[in-house]
Amino acid sequence: MAELADLSALGMLVTWDQLVMMPGEGAPARAHQLGTLARLTHERATSQDVGEWLSELDGQDLDELDADIARIARRDWDRARRVPAELAVELAQASAHGQESWRAAREADDFAAFAPALARNVELARAHGECQAEPGQSAYDALLGDYDYGLCTTDLRRLFAALAEALPPLVADARAHSPKRSLAVSVAAQQAAVASTLRRIGVNDTSWRVDVSAHPFTACMGPRDSRVTTRYGDGDVESLLSSLHEYGHALYERQIDAALDRTNLGTGTSMSIHESQSKLWENHVARSAAFAQVLAGELGAGGYDVSPDELHAALIGVEPSPIRVSADSLTYPLHIILRFELELAMVQDDLAVADLPGAWRDGMRRLLGVEVDSDALGCLQDVHWGAGSFGYFPSYALGCLIAAQLWEAMEAAIGPREQDLRRGEVAPIQLWLAENVHRYGRRLDTLPLVQRATGQELSVEPFLRHVAPLAGR
Amino acid sequence: MAELADLSALGMLVTWDQLVMMPGEGAPARAHQLGTLARLTHERATSQDVGEWLSELDGQDLDELDADIARIARRDWDRARRVPAELAVELAQASAHGQESWRAAREADDFAAFAPALARNVELARAHGECQAEPGQSAYDALLGDYDYGLCTTDLRRLFAALAEALPPLVADARAHSPKRSLAVSVAAQQAAVASTLRRIGVNDTSWRVDVSAHPFTACMGPRDSRVTTRYGDGDVESLLSSLHEYGHALYERQIDAALDRTNLGTGTSMSIHESQSKLWENHVARSAAFAQVLAGELGAGGYDVSPDELHAALIGVEPSPIRVSADSLTYPLHIILRFELELAMVQDDLAVADLPGAWRDGMRRLLGVEVDSDALGCLQDVHWGAGSFGYFPSYALGCLIAAQLWEAMEAAIGPREQDLRRGEVAPIQLWLAENVHRYGRRLDTLPLVQRATGQELSVEPFLRHVAPLAGR
Repeated sequence: MAELADLSALGMLVTWDQLVMMPGEGAPARAHQLGTLARLTHERATSQDVGEWLSELDGQDLDELDADIARIARRDWDRARRVPAELAVELAQASAHGQESWRAAREADDFAAFAPALARNVELARAHGECQAEPGQSAYDALLGDYDYGLCTTDLRRLFAALAEALPPLVADARAHSPKRSLAVSVAAQQAAVASTLRRIGVNDTSWRVDVSAHPFTACMGPRDSRVTTRYGDGDVESLLSSLHEYGHALYERQIDAALDRTNLGTGTSMSIHESQSKLWENHVARSAAFAQVLAGELGAGGYDVSPDELHAALIGVEPSPIRVSADSLTYPLHIILRFELELAMVQDDLAVADLPGAWRDGMRRLLGVEVDSDALGCLQDVHWGAGSFGYFPSYALGCLIAAQLWEAMEAAIGPREQDLRRGEVAPIQLWLAENVHRYGRRLDTLPLVQRATGQELSVEPFLRHVAPLAGR
Repeated sequence: MAELADLSALGMLVTWDQLVMMPGEGAPARAHQLGTLARLTHERATSQDVGEWLSELDGQDLDELDADIARIARRDWDRARRVPAELAVELAQASAHGQESWRAAREADDFAAFAPALARNVELARAHGECQAEPGQSAYDALLGDYDYGLCTTDLRRLFAALAEALPPLVADARAHSPKRSLAVSVAAQQAAVASTLRRIGVNDTSWRVDVSAHPFTACMGPRDSRVTTRYGDGDVESLLSSLHEYGHALYERQIDAALDRTNLGTGTSMSIHESQSKLWENHVARSAAFAQVLAGELGAGGYDVSPDELHAALIGVEPSPIRVSADSLTYPLHIILRFELELAMVQDDLAVADLPGAWRDGMRRLLGVEVDSDALGCLQDVHWGAGSFGYFPSYALGCLIAAQLWEAMEAAIGPREQDLRRGEVAPIQLWLAENVHRYGRRLDTLPLVQRATGQELSVEPFLRHVAPLAGR
């Protein structure tokens, strides 16, 4: 397990280097190196040895931690072994090919050029889900298990139906009550504000790196080697949100119980819990009126004068748009619901790939009231399906829901955060998250963790309460 | 072989990251990750499978390239398999411990604190050499084979005896004829000159990186991903020399025949040939009067005015000193000869570890006429013995000799380089090195490569001719 943890950290490092440091022409050699690392890791993870060690542990009296290690090791091994080696190779190759095909098709705004690769990815995802499925599970349920073990399509349908009903009227009101506003902040002022804000909340040079990359992401090479990236657009404030977002991912990994280090439990438990941690810092800290005091102060120190109110208005403004990654916090889940509906339909063979662009336009009109001008800004905007990732999108919306539910539970436990956030004091938040979410690592899956941390089943209500003020409610 | 090449490149990347990018507190996790990578690599390199594949190839009719691949694979596998797994583990642990012990002892200038770790390293090196030795080989010969296959102690004794006789009188004259001079060049001017000089000779952003690290080094993650580092001292010109030095290492790896990529032959053949490539650019390009025109121009563009003659004088000045890494090109080999004599004596059990400091002082007096004030500036100055590296030092001096011999052969073939170097034109040098040295990768070992490239046996004469002008001869 320690070896697999090391190999996983190495994979993260190699990917980080590729996206942040590697000179461009290093790509072909890097692809070989990543392939070799992935193959060796897969061999170790699925080796007969692991199965035999696990069998030896069956029925033995283990302490709680060891029992959890063995339980998750058994689950991971069983799941990995259910995928035939040939299918694993086909999936990897189709993913690499699909991403290339997607890139070219998006550039040319030519969905037909992407359709064959997408059809292949859908077919392989279905096969993957079918061989992974446990008795009574659908293929899509099984795919969800790769990202969020224990979640099922029924849960998602229920939660997303509630959102799809409640959000559109809120969006309509929010367009008037909290309209989108822009601020022309220079890159230099953003850089200064991001650096000093992150420093305030614990980012130092001895165990963090903050770099720039085309798409912000986080890589954790160990509990004391956290690397977040951001990007700076000229004249926007996205870097303030995205740097807090990535910080949330990194903080989660840093605060996992040290006893789980280099075990199979020493990472975040699921995509949706991970996303809840980034969304908590993005939506509930960076987008709060209280923390706008801090951010406005840091922008001022960086040479850009703005009032906290103006800045806050720019950080929360609502306006439906065709693009997911730049969506506001109210419309964002609707983008995800559309993707969930469509990928589920494709995997279940209820939607032909050729009909995807039309279904996309219909869905955008229905959920967001937005007309999509081109497939490049429509169903070709995200890489996920090109890469063969089906079952991943839902975690983005679940993260918003879980963040809101955790935030309410935390404020109920330790009091409203407003006074602290005005002064940039986040230590009590860090501590509550460490105790109630982070420390468990993979010992608790998504739904049990939400139940334990909040005392409630996962629901949409906290999120709806959180966004209601945007609509003046 | 491709897999091992990938793993080796990954090891290099992980080490580069540790020395250049990693936040300091990432070190403990990184040590685990490197350990896992080394263990997996060792397992693959010594696996029974490889031996069986090689046996299947025995007696088969292979083309020249395949025959070389099989020949070197057999040699590497045999050598690696001769080291018992327990000894390999002991060597790795003693190396890690020895480096820590050395660091603390050097800081405290306390040789006695380091002596036990050194004694252990010597003992293990001897055991390592003995189990690696082929019939008739001494333990030290076998250790040399890890760095420079085919070289033997007898060769080194002969070459170094000639240098130890010829150099001291040259040093005496050079102190008067080419005395050490310093230039107070700002860090900013050095940075500008290093960047523009490297750009002139082919370093671009698409397949190179140039970074800063505590000790300059080169890491090549693939033929189109070359990473050199340098360091900038306030008020010296070492960065001009060391950046050209590291460039030489990187150029070697870049110009290996592409057909050898991802085979066991696709890297530099030995430490001494590698060092000859760095020394060629350092001693014969950067330290030439002709190239001083270019370097002075680049310093001027960076805001530091200096005449080519003044700069050249500062780059070649001779002055015996106790420190190897800052030694001039004339005294440098004498530092190496001392280390060779002492490490050979320790491995052969002719010198007790406790007697090392005295022997060091005696040797420095004899070879360089230098009085050593402290062990920290004496036998504790280099990490190599702390890391358990015995047989490595000689390559530093051999690199100087081979560089001079290659340079003479090249000028004989394509004419004097002076006119070209004045203009910064190095393409013919790059081409000659590619054709006569680089392209072979590991297909030729050190001595056959020198013979093939220069038509001569390795000798000290070209180096002595190269340094004679420093003494006014």
